[in-house]
Amino acid sequence: MSDHQAASEGAQASGFLDVQGLGRLLKRAAELDAADALAGFRERFLLPDSLVYLDGNSLGALPAAVPGRLGEVVGREWGELLIRSWDESGWWSAPERIGDLIAPIVGASAGRIVVGDSTSVNIFKALVAAARRLDELAGDHGRDELLVDASTFPTDGYIARSAARMTGLRVVPVDPAELPGRVGPATAVVLVNHADYRSGRLHDLPGITEAVHAAGALVVWDLCHSAGALPVDLDTHGVDYAVGCTYKYLNGGPGAPAFLYVAQTHQATFDSPLPGWNSHADPFGMTAQYRPAEGAARGRVGTPDILSMLSLEAALGVWEDVSIEAVRAKSLALTDFFLECVEAYVPAGRVQPITPLNHAERGSQVALRVPAGDAGPLMQKLIARGVVGDFRRPDVLRFGFTPLYVSFADAERAARVLGHISE
Amino acid sequence: MSDHQAASEGAQASGFLDVQGLGRLLKRAAELDAADALAGFRERFLLPDSLVYLDGNSLGALPAAVPGRLGEVVGREWGELLIRSWDESGWWSAPERIGDLIAPIVGASAGRIVVGDSTSVNIFKALVAAARRLDELAGDHGRDELLVDASTFPTDGYIARSAARMTGLRVVPVDPAELPGRVGPATAVVLVNHADYRSGRLHDLPGITEAVHAAGALVVWDLCHSAGALPVDLDTHGVDYAVGCTYKYLNGGPGAPAFLYVAQTHQATFDSPLPGWNSHADPFGMTAQYRPAEGAARGRVGTPDILSMLSLEAALGVWEDVSIEAVRAKSLALTDFFLECVEAYVPAGRVQPITPLNHAERGSQVALRVPAGDAGPLMQKLIARGVVGDFRRPDVLRFGFTPLYVSFADAERAARVLGHISE
Repeated sequence: MSDHQAASEGAQASGFLDVQGLGRLLKRAAELDAADALAGFRERFLLPDSLVYLDGNSLGALPAAVPGRLGEVVGREWGELLIRSWDESGWWSAPERIGDLIAPIVGASAGRIVVGDSTSVNIFKALVAAARRLDELAGDHGRDELLVDASTFPTDGYIARSAARMTGLRVVPVDPAELPGRVGPATAVVLVNHADYRSGRLHDLPGITEAVHAAGALVVWDLCHSAGALPVDLDTHGVDYAVGCTYKYLNGGPGAPAFLYVAQTHQATFDSPLPGWNSHADPFGMTAQYRPAEGAARGRVGTPDILSMLSLEAALGVWEDVSIEAVRAKSLALTDFFLECVEAYVPAGRVQPITPLNHAERGSQVALRVPAGDAGPLMQKLIARGVVGDFRRPDVLRFGFTPLYVSFADAERAARVLGHISE
Repeated sequence: MSDHQAASEGAQASGFLDVQGLGRLLKRAAELDAADALAGFRERFLLPDSLVYLDGNSLGALPAAVPGRLGEVVGREWGELLIRSWDESGWWSAPERIGDLIAPIVGASAGRIVVGDSTSVNIFKALVAAARRLDELAGDHGRDELLVDASTFPTDGYIARSAARMTGLRVVPVDPAELPGRVGPATAVVLVNHADYRSGRLHDLPGITEAVHAAGALVVWDLCHSAGALPVDLDTHGVDYAVGCTYKYLNGGPGAPAFLYVAQTHQATFDSPLPGWNSHADPFGMTAQYRPAEGAARGRVGTPDILSMLSLEAALGVWEDVSIEAVRAKSLALTDFFLECVEAYVPAGRVQPITPLNHAERGSQVALRVPAGDAGPLMQKLIARGVVGDFRRPDVLRFGFTPLYVSFADAERAARVLGHISE
């Protein structure tokens, strides 16, 4: 679509906005894209040109390297080498090897991260291991609180209650902003989402981690909505345990395995509630006695799902020559620009941004509150017009910005279409 | 290879066997293959003609339908439809839908099986749920034993100890043959492997299940080495819980997700230690309160690994027009014939079959004991000659027979090569 055509459509769509104002934002988008050092990275993905894809915070786009690599894994490694691939094709070591590819993206040293199982299962491992670690560190500590951020993604809360039930703790939901003042002598473990899945609010990882440690407790961070979107710096901030998703900003594919980070100081005593044979120090010894592996492998459980895992490995190739700082800078610029366009294009009062304007409190998505019941129909209209986001009941439209394949022109068009259907 | 060539090679290989004896077994193999109603099913797999693949009990061969289907899943469903595929491509319902494809193979009604996570993780779910179910059924029962077959695949034992630790039970290893006489008033839960991974011995599922129930306990069966190899008849025998592997005799691909069976009588009270958002009655309601789904979905945890899962779904297409009874009949005929050929070709005393000769006690593999330390080098020689099995330390050669793609000629050739390298 030419700028002229786009301007015409926009002018028809937004009677309240003069063509000059529209032209100004289109021109700004073009200038921002022209100056964007990451603009060329969209070619590393197979994403239809017609789509404005703002749902990478739910399912990341398909990296161009994946189909070929997966064809090779299936045809050659499974079909021809068969069982030999566990050694010869490096299947067995994939969970640690891929963990080491994720490590620099979240600020972890090599050897701290292992890939496998779902986010939920890894949260269970981390919470139970944290509770056991505290028993070991603090002896008869009398702490029984497992604090969970009150706005958590549901699975974290459900799994926390299960882990609490099985380790003698009790779950206490706490507003994440109040966590630093709430942790105390009764707190054993704290589970917090780094970025809120609904509002896009970014919680203060360094500050909360410090407060938890000052209170003598341990912290588990859920990085589902921050890994691959912004710097996390796990090692630097002394995070104890972290779990993250690989099919959002890391583009691993639908349901790709999650990752588990264990700080160096806790690795040697990591006591998993799921000690499968893959985490044994000598897995092919097949001994009746369990003896845990050293390092990240201790977080493994059963046989890794190789197809999903090697798809993720190929997907991580898009991070070659990309710094997470550059990704963060573009993410903030994109969400700033989208908010500006929404303000310009959408009639006043129709939507209410609930994502913080303050950069330090913003993840990589913009959430807009709409009248309850409107979110679903509005998102359907957006999708029908080629703008893909999603919604969360009852009243939130979510727009995720993945800097490696989303352009400023995409942000402008999404806001313009939203303005159009909101009239 | 022509019969003549094969006979020559065999004659050179087995000096002790006259050419007439060799010719007799080759002729028998050809006759058995000609009469085999399942012979044509090998075309449903992409298996190199040059391979005698007897390791399907570790990693099943590649079904011909998988590469094309996986290409479609990646290119079209992920790459183009993206997030819409959760609904439009049926991704969300895959765990139950694929469970229903497995159900007839293991004698389960529709709605009892769900696919997802690893075998180890599912054993944890089943054991904890069984312990909780017993508490519910029997109140203050005072039972504290979790009996595990002493020859179990290691992960079952490790996970059993973890489940016991977290539910107040204690693990007691018991020889599976002694289980019916050992279960008693102190027994809470019993975990048994249907077919032993090392020896290939098939345990008495109906008899043990009946004995466990007579003692007032609950049973969890591990079907890793029987699902897809022989009739299991879970519903008929009143099995409480079962877990199985899909990458062995079900050919789902490396690390394909496992399955979990819960008997109808226990479904409504299935109390999972891993209550992730996928098992919620209204997963997209995203409520803080957990309310479990009805039916098999209650066994789900987090987002399913779609690539591995849909590879499995395509793989299950090979079961069209196949009865598990026909598979079992051929499996027994294959292992009988292999044992006969081993006896004819391998110098006396070099190998000792440890798989029972009695059909009722035999799974779908033949395990041969060799002098300790020889197993690895012997298997290397076999593989170098195109006969792929595997070995288990310290002294067992394993040969798995998957009736859908293994021929009687394969069995004869494997034994002949073994004879050759054993001279």
